[in-house]
Amino acid sequence: MNTSAKSDGGGLGVGLIGTGYMGKCHALAWNAVASTFGDVARPRLLALAEASAELARTKATELGFATSTGDWRELLADPEIDVISITTPNRFHAEIAIAALEAGKHVWCEKPMATAFADAQAMHAAWRRSGKVAVLGYNYIQNPAMRLIRKLIGEGAIGIVNHVRLEMDEDFMADRETPFAIRNEASAGYGALDDFAVHPLSLLRFVLGGVAEVFGEMARPYADRPHPDGGRRAIENYDIATALLRLESGASGVLTVNRAAWGRKGRIQLQIFGDGGAIVFDQERFNEVQLFRREGAEETQGFRTILSAPVHKPYDRFIPAPGHGLGFNDLKVIECRELIARIQGEKASVFDFDDGLAIERTVHAIADSFTKGRWVTVKA
Amino acid sequence: MNTSAKSDGGGLGVGLIGTGYMGKCHALAWNAVASTFGDVARPRLLALAEASAELARTKATELGFATSTGDWRELLADPEIDVISITTPNRFHAEIAIAALEAGKHVWCEKPMATAFADAQAMHAAWRRSGKVAVLGYNYIQNPAMRLIRKLIGEGAIGIVNHVRLEMDEDFMADRETPFAIRNEASAGYGALDDFAVHPLSLLRFVLGGVAEVFGEMARPYADRPHPDGGRRAIENYDIATALLRLESGASGVLTVNRAAWGRKGRIQLQIFGDGGAIVFDQERFNEVQLFRREGAEETQGFRTILSAPVHKPYDRFIPAPGHGLGFNDLKVIECRELIARIQGEKASVFDFDDGLAIERTVHAIADSFTKGRWVTVKA
Amino acid sequence: MNTSAKSDGGGLGVGLIGTGYMGKCHALAWNAVASTFGDVARPRLLALAEASAELARTKATELGFATSTGDWRELLADPEIDVISITTPNRFHAEIAIAALEAGKHVWCEKPMATAFADAQAMHAAWRRSGKVAVLGYNYIQNPAMRLIRKLIGEGAIGIVNHVRLEMDEDFMADRETPFAIRNEASAGYGALDDFAVHPLSLLRFVLGGVAEVFGEMARPYADRPHPDGGRRAIENYDIATALLRLESGASGVLTVNRAAWGRKGRIQLQIFGDGGAIVFDQERFNEVQLFRREGAEETQGFRTILSAPVHKPYDRFIPAPGHGLGFNDLKVIECRELIARIQGEKASVFDFDDGLAIERTVHAIADSFTKGRWVTVKA
Amino acid sequence: MNTSAKSDGGGLGVGLIGTGYMGKCHALAWNAVASTFGDVARPRLLALAEASAELARTKATELGFATSTGDWRELLADPEIDVISITTPNRFHAEIAIAALEAGKHVWCEKPMATAFADAQAMHAAWRRSGKVAVLGYNYIQNPAMRLIRKLIGEGAIGIVNHVRLEMDEDFMADRETPFAIRNEASAGYGALDDFAVHPLSLLRFVLGGVAEVFGEMARPYADRPHPDGGRRAIENYDIATALLRLESGASGVLTVNRAAWGRKGRIQLQIFGDGGAIVFDQERFNEVQLFRREGAEETQGFRTILSAPVHKPYDRFIPAPGHGLGFNDLKVIECRELIARIQGEKASVFDFDDGLAIERTVHAIADSFTKGRWVTVKA
Repeated sequence: MNTSAKSDGGGLGVGLIGTGYMGKCHALAWNAVASTFGDVARPRLLALAEASAELARTKATELGFATSTGDWRELLADPEIDVISITTPNRFHAEIAIAALEAGKHVWCEKPMATAFADAQAMHAAWRRSGKVAVLGYNYIQNPAMRLIRKLIGEGAIGIVNHVRLEMDEDFMADRETPFAIRNEASAGYGALDDFAVHPLSLLRFVLGGVAEVFGEMARPYADRPHPDGGRRAIENYDIATALLRLESGASGVLTVNRAAWGRKGRIQLQIFGDGGAIVFDQERFNEVQLFRREGAEETQGFRTILSAPVHKPYDRFIPAPGHGLGFNDLKVIECRELIARIQGEKASVFDFDDGLAIERTVHAIADSFTKGRWVTVKA
Repeated sequence: MNTSAKSDGGGLGVGLIGTGYMGKCHALAWNAVASTFGDVARPRLLALAEASAELARTKATELGFATSTGDWRELLADPEIDVISITTPNRFHAEIAIAALEAGKHVWCEKPMATAFADAQAMHAAWRRSGKVAVLGYNYIQNPAMRLIRKLIGEGAIGIVNHVRLEMDEDFMADRETPFAIRNEASAGYGALDDFAVHPLSLLRFVLGGVAEVFGEMARPYADRPHPDGGRRAIENYDIATALLRLESGASGVLTVNRAAWGRKGRIQLQIFGDGGAIVFDQERFNEVQLFRREGAEETQGFRTILSAPVHKPYDRFIPAPGHGLGFNDLKVIECRELIARIQGEKASVFDFDDGLAIERTVHAIADSFTKGRWVTVKA
Repeated sequence: MNTSAKSDGGGLGVGLIGTGYMGKCHALAWNAVASTFGDVARPRLLALAEASAELARTKATELGFATSTGDWRELLADPEIDVISITTPNRFHAEIAIAALEAGKHVWCEKPMATAFADAQAMHAAWRRSGKVAVLGYNYIQNPAMRLIRKLIGEGAIGIVNHVRLEMDEDFMADRETPFAIRNEASAGYGALDDFAVHPLSLLRFVLGGVAEVFGEMARPYADRPHPDGGRRAIENYDIATALLRLESGASGVLTVNRAAWGRKGRIQLQIFGDGGAIVFDQERFNEVQLFRREGAEETQGFRTILSAPVHKPYDRFIPAPGHGLGFNDLKVIECRELIARIQGEKASVFDFDDGLAIERTVHAIADSFTKGRWVTVKA
Repeated sequence: MNTSAKSDGGGLGVGLIGTGYMGKCHALAWNAVASTFGDVARPRLLALAEASAELARTKATELGFATSTGDWRELLADPEIDVISITTPNRFHAEIAIAALEAGKHVWCEKPMATAFADAQAMHAAWRRSGKVAVLGYNYIQNPAMRLIRKLIGEGAIGIVNHVRLEMDEDFMADRETPFAIRNEASAGYGALDDFAVHPLSLLRFVLGGVAEVFGEMARPYADRPHPDGGRRAIENYDIATALLRLESGASGVLTVNRAAWGRKGRIQLQIFGDGGAIVFDQERFNEVQLFRREGAEETQGFRTILSAPVHKPYDRFIPAPGHGLGFNDLKVIECRELIARIQGEKASVFDFDDGLAIERTVHAIADSFTKGRWVTVKA
């Protein structure tokens, strides 16, 4: 038998900081990207950091990393590590990302960039100084269906877009009796606006572009929640947020997000109207795109349901047959492949810290508008 | 054979003014109401008025009215006529309705009440003075599915409602090259806000209640349209309107309407979220209600699709079997039956001029807010 | 005012026998057809027959007929009556239809023709002798969506059809504890095969053509039902039937019907596959057609949902705006208009006794095949 | 830093034979299973065999195997290899599986077992002799949604099942001009019956049980196809197959499969009716289950759409949030985990050669029935 060139064949050296939801998702992507795409060297999963050495050791075994540590700074000191996945709680993003970039590492950081806008700006500045790659985990844009939508709009399939509607809803805060937690404090941010708005705004940016002006509104479905220590405590931020949008392109729009919407599990709906047609997308059925084009006989016009297929790249790298369905985790594998392309200096479809800062700027303008009760310009 | 008591058996004497879309719809309803419900005297279709005597004559034959005239005031002078259907262009509603009420006739007037708010107020005052019945043609509220939604909310099936989203979209103005017409002039009103917003607002009022504060935004998908006389002429009002809502109940909401939305034909979508569930409805599938309740095992929770059925009154008066589907015109027959009940002094589920004025007030507050760029209170 | 030519203006003289579900549906259609279409003389609703004079009198008042009788033969003797609506229980169809045709009346008879095939043959022979019009109430074929499907297939929009699947399901016999009734006796026929199969077979015939060979299977979901007199009684026929089909065109097919299918309310699903596309239709959403065509870029191919609209004639006679939805009863109004056209000697899209006999022949061949356990040819 | 126990920590030694569609899918699963589930030792991807040494070397690098060979028998001789993934063309399954079992390896073989029934029997006999684990790649049964359906049926959520309908449709043979290929020869088997029927039959077996009697029908949508050498050649097998089913439980059923069904991409629809409700599932939306239960007020009964969620195990091992969607490849990872469980002697939910043989027996009985034109008993 021939020995394969599989191991240590020049693949990127990878360090992972954080092993929650998204940490595991990064690990699965680093594990899968070479086999899935077949055109990149197999990454070397070198080191994993967690809050304690013990947890780190357990997770390293589970997720396939060679070494582990309770001190994330050790990863920055390792010359074998090329790229750092940052999947910690959001409030640590800035400190770690800046340190990693300053240590000469590429950075793959989960969204949102940071909880405070100043931190996002500092991350952005550090990135610019570093000359390294800094990519954000906006994995929904990696959906082949979303690339199709972008392509269709770019080609004018629905004409000039003049109106968009964006919604994102889940129900993990819908239970009135869910105990008060840190996420309900003002210090944790605006609430749904931070948690959710970045997602539809990233899709909007990906398929269409940026936002010029906003008017914001927020609402509390519940005034208080039971406190673990007894009694009830007033909720300090907002589980619902809405924003009227005026896009840079001149199109009008509206965005609503709600993390207390019973029955919605992972809904991100886009409705995009142009002067030649319309596109509708729902993340709960993310292998489907609804397309209406004003063409052909009127008697046969209608929204068509397009199922993701090998023709929608890179679906074909996962499954050679149409209509079989990608999964949520597959989107992170695609993102990982694009990150590698960016690091290799190739054309890549990812959101970097420029994109991230633009999205954060929009979010903060919405909050600012809500406070002021008037339209606010999103300043570049 | 026995002679039937069918003709002239004490049924209401009916006059119809206007024979367009809604005029025909009223005529069909007056023709069908007795046979459908079986519990009211057959209305006597006595007289029909149109712009010319000739058109009136043709339409009277078509629609089954005994006499016709080119002068609508003749109908008010006829003592046999009990109720006047007003289905003229909106700008004539006020004059005719006020005259009819002053002549001692009951009035069944198509929505919206009037193009100017002052006219709606004058209609309302005339109604109050008259002691007669004045009902508006908000037929979407007559849908048995809508009654089910109202009942479910009233019973607390989805708990206390805290958030609503309303959309209404059609595409009859979506073609950029549709010629400039009167409806594109400022004198014709705000545009989509007038044409459409009253519909979802009527449904909101029917199932939940009124609006306390609004913030409005309007947009033009197209700057101009070809003028029949040549060249292009700037559009003076707005094919798209959006409003942030704060309901009287304290719930938050958002409303968007668009008469230039390619692919949408008769869409009126409601999304209603409560602390115990959610309801979703779409007028394009108006024999269906989507209901999510937080009950039973989590593993089997989901939105259920309820098909209209005899159990949803008065569907049973049309069809004794479930899932067979009412049509748009059937809703007007139900409205006609409710109108008769109101005239007979019985409990009736209709929107009268009180309801109409409240809806108009909301619409005008949205427009006012748009002009001022700030939140506006809907004054009672 | 001018007196209208509305009454007695030469419209057909109508007699109605039977006032159940379909009797009311006929009455509503006779009431509505002139106002809806505007191009036919208003029918004169002259006489109604029911089992007793008293019931007849009540129903005549309700449904708008001038006279009533407890003896249906009186209608046949009335020279003013041109056409007889027969909506009695199925077992009386043959006797009444034959007598009516022999009395020189046109006949509008509800489906199925008869409970025994010999009766259907006798009805057919009487019709041929009479020279009169005899139309069956296959109202599902009157759906503008169904006409669209027929047109699309005729134009080759999905190429040459090679495979069809037909299903019809309701749940009115789904409750195991529904008491034993006449319909569960062998004397009442095969069960679901009689009740339901004629509907999808009529749609198949309408859009595509006839059936050449069949293989039948029937099944009993429940062995017995509680008898009103106590105890349980064995069910003698079949709530479920399936047939393999070989169409005259050479296409293959399968038909399944079930009147004990929980959750299905009025489902009649067609799936039609051709060498250039496919069409899917579901009666529970009968204002929609699903169309897949193999055309354009592969990346945008998909089933499109076409909403019924004025372009789909004669939807426009009911509603001038698309997507607003016809109702089940509207289909009978269309059928009534086609019946009048046929009586007037004009081109009409209806199923007459030729069509009805062909459908009955297929049903009986399926039953015959089930008994014999082998394929059976449908003999013309 | 601590060195992780990741490598060579006692995980199964894996050999892979074949690297097509399913070969890659197996490789991705072997790569992902430890990180995804976190409770099994990381498999050691030791050796890969392909038709040539060169192809094997390329694929080993791509898919992460340590060594490669052009002779699959080398894998059987390697004592480090515990389990062999067999993903070659179906006609090689028998030879390789029997050899692997005789060499003392566990076998993970793609479905169907073999092209000839005698081969499947030989595989089964070899398995029984070996004492080893032999699992078939029926990955659709691994869907958490399918486990939910099985659980619901088992708990009586829809009562006693009395009727099922199964469909599987794709369109890869729908183009009439797709060139004639080996798959169109009689030597390649029955056609759609082999290709597709095993899938819905596996789901039926998984959720409900086996088939007692069948009646089969097959059809050719196209008589011939263009031959690569010029001219057209007659198709020798059948792109469409239908079977009437009588289940062991006494329920009735029907199965239709079509590999020439334009517009269908990966459709496997199940409709399951019981005396207390119904379940509908479609593989094209495989993260959803439709459930109708006869419970609660009639006015709110309807089919509910249940989205896959962490509560549906083992969805939670992939994603901790509901409604985010598993992908097709994830099902193979679950299957891999179950295979490991079976090898470890733990409770496992997989189909072994007993199940596989039962499914093959049903398929061959359908073909036998088609030839004979009569019902055939599926002999155990």
